[in-house]
Amino acid sequence: MIYFDSAATSWPKPDAVWQAMEYCLKQVGANPGRSGYRMALEANSIVNETRQLLAGLFNIDKWEQVTFGLNATEALNLAIKGLLRPGEHVITSSMEHNSVSRPLYYLAGQGVEVSKVPCDSETGIISVEAISSAVKSNTRAIVLTHASNVTGTLMPVKEVGELARDKGLIFIVDAAQTAGVFDIDVQEMGIDLLAFPGHKSLLGPTGTGGLYVKEGIKLTPLKHGGTGKLSEVPEQPEVMPDRYESGTVNSFGIAGLGAALKYIQREGMQKIREHELNLTGQFLQGACNLKSLRIYGLKDTAGRAPVVSFNFEGYDTQEAADILHKTFNIACRVGAHCAPDAHKTLGTLEKKLIRFSFSHFNTAAEVSYALNCLEDIIAGKAKKT
Amino acid sequence: MIYFDSAATSWPKPDAVWQAMEYCLKQVGANPGRSGYRMALEANSIVNETRQLLAGLFNIDKWEQVTFGLNATEALNLAIKGLLRPGEHVITSSMEHNSVSRPLYYLAGQGVEVSKVPCDSETGIISVEAISSAVKSNTRAIVLTHASNVTGTLMPVKEVGELARDKGLIFIVDAAQTAGVFDIDVQEMGIDLLAFPGHKSLLGPTGTGGLYVKEGIKLTPLKHGGTGKLSEVPEQPEVMPDRYESGTVNSFGIAGLGAALKYIQREGMQKIREHELNLTGQFLQGACNLKSLRIYGLKDTAGRAPVVSFNFEGYDTQEAADILHKTFNIACRVGAHCAPDAHKTLGTLEKKLIRFSFSHFNTAAEVSYALNCLEDIIAGKAKKT
Repeated sequence: MIYFDSAATSWPKPDAVWQAMEYCLKQVGANPGRSGYRMALEANSIVNETRQLLAGLFNIDKWEQVTFGLNATEALNLAIKGLLRPGEHVITSSMEHNSVSRPLYYLAGQGVEVSKVPCDSETGIISVEAISSAVKSNTRAIVLTHASNVTGTLMPVKEVGELARDKGLIFIVDAAQTAGVFDIDVQEMGIDLLAFPGHKSLLGPTGTGGLYVKEGIKLTPLKHGGTGKLSEVPEQPEVMPDRYESGTVNSFGIAGLGAALKYIQREGMQKIREHELNLTGQFLQGACNLKSLRIYGLKDTAGRAPVVSFNFEGYDTQEAADILHKTFNIACRVGAHCAPDAHKTLGTLEKKLIRFSFSHFNTAAEVSYALNCLEDIIAGKAKKT
Repeated sequence: MIYFDSAATSWPKPDAVWQAMEYCLKQVGANPGRSGYRMALEANSIVNETRQLLAGLFNIDKWEQVTFGLNATEALNLAIKGLLRPGEHVITSSMEHNSVSRPLYYLAGQGVEVSKVPCDSETGIISVEAISSAVKSNTRAIVLTHASNVTGTLMPVKEVGELARDKGLIFIVDAAQTAGVFDIDVQEMGIDLLAFPGHKSLLGPTGTGGLYVKEGIKLTPLKHGGTGKLSEVPEQPEVMPDRYESGTVNSFGIAGLGAALKYIQREGMQKIREHELNLTGQFLQGACNLKSLRIYGLKDTAGRAPVVSFNFEGYDTQEAADILHKTFNIACRVGAHCAPDAHKTLGTLEKKLIRFSFSHFNTAAEVSYALNCLEDIIAGKAKKT
């Protein structure tokens, strides 16, 4: 199996992830932050060490501002629904994932005003000026993906962060496709709320993800409940990170995520990025030579995350994907990628796209093989088995 | 380490849990329900098999009605906030965990009327008549724990379910302390929404839990986002279980939970329950002979989950717990157990309680040892190390 679906969930994981989870499950077990015995204290240390590693990665001053949840979607729901109130206005892009579009669609039904700034139909890029023009007197926030999960297009996050700061707006960033590969500096980029998945390029297990909440921002929690500390007060306490972490956290998963973060530190994020972008470049270059294959988004690696989507002239997208899956054993995603707005922007909502996403563990040989497979499909030499 | 904190998170886990997680992480990896390649399909099968096992355990007709989230607290938030609207009235007990009390406190601030039916200050039992008397014309739902996480007192769920059915109310049950040990039959008990944790008596890993939603009940999702299916529609789709599962589920954890459910099937839930209640009975009997130790709740095992809380006359609760933790290496919980209402009911909010909770993996020898330790503490022979 050639796995080109790391934009959904990265695979494989570093061995250390597994080992940390095994240690946590077998030796530590207990519920973190809830009691004073050895295992509970150690579980708490493991969870907080992972927070510290994330704080380091994103240049967050206080690690207590990093909160854990099930996945990045939960983090975005907490950020978006926890912040915005009826009558307020929010600006977003036309390239967002449903994890942003659907919470906003829901809030629009509750009286929040939503402006979707159209992105370029070729590249998927947003114009900072267009965002600036959309700002109104009741604008509260800008919600933007760091990179499209369809085209991989990197958005001008730093410039938008400056705009948000200038206009006094809260800046919410979806780092689903970038955390663990691209530099994210919440201070330099002016990010107030950063949502990240643990199970994609951060190389951790499923069931992990979280939200950085800038100090001073008070969101309505998505979940109210037991927080270990301050049990006696009837309302959700304000203390961080407990405020947004009701119930038992996924300590085993977070242990794995911590090990993954240390792995990324050891390997070097720059090296990881270069490798992934080399594979992306190799694929883009090879794909250019395949007549009838059309790449969407930027045509080379500059300004791109290692995510490439394409379809064919004169060939059904789903059928091609079926051949890739079944005949060639290549794991990739076909369809709308939970991002119908992005597909509308690109004009591919009907025809759909096949997405390849490359990880640290993919090789140049795999990319060559995939290019050969695509050539065979186009040449009509490969059939569905 | 003697682990008496399974009411928080059970430990150890059956070996099969670990093995299933390892297999899923190393061999299956991918994102379930999102694509058509082998690993994605297998991940989906694993997740749905766990749903089927839960449906079997709780006598749920359609396994698609079982939805997964991070923990039981999330499930309760989804049930409570997803159902109740301003102007509606909800009835609950005075023995609830903060996972029920705090969402209700939040909703009370939003215009939902909340009645807390006082429970017996000795036993913690609720009177079905008192619930019945609290029903008003705008009552929408009853929210009740199946067993208190402080005293282990089992609530008359079946009778309350009948009352709810008679009065046309939605019945929400918190099975945090019972799922995996006590029979739960959503049809016989008239349960409309059942919240369960995966990591307590169901013996699964952290990061698992969920909600059964009776067919026909439509909740406002806690999280909107990507659901794999029906990507193109802007609103959250109604299809189950996707409606309540935005973003990537904790497939590795759910694989472990599935293995845990099969382990419970093999061992037999009745055998597990009998063993846990035998230990509870042994502890209750031994504790009766310890002067100055006071048990809260029922004094024998009838009507009890394997959770026992106590404190001492003339001895500080926290200090005793510290000795248990540090001198005797016994893992237990001290404090308010995230259930201040229960402590208010019992009159222990100030003095606090120590909680022992027994699991399938505890032994009679461990209970005897703990009783000896308590005897030493009371006799002043044991000091904090």
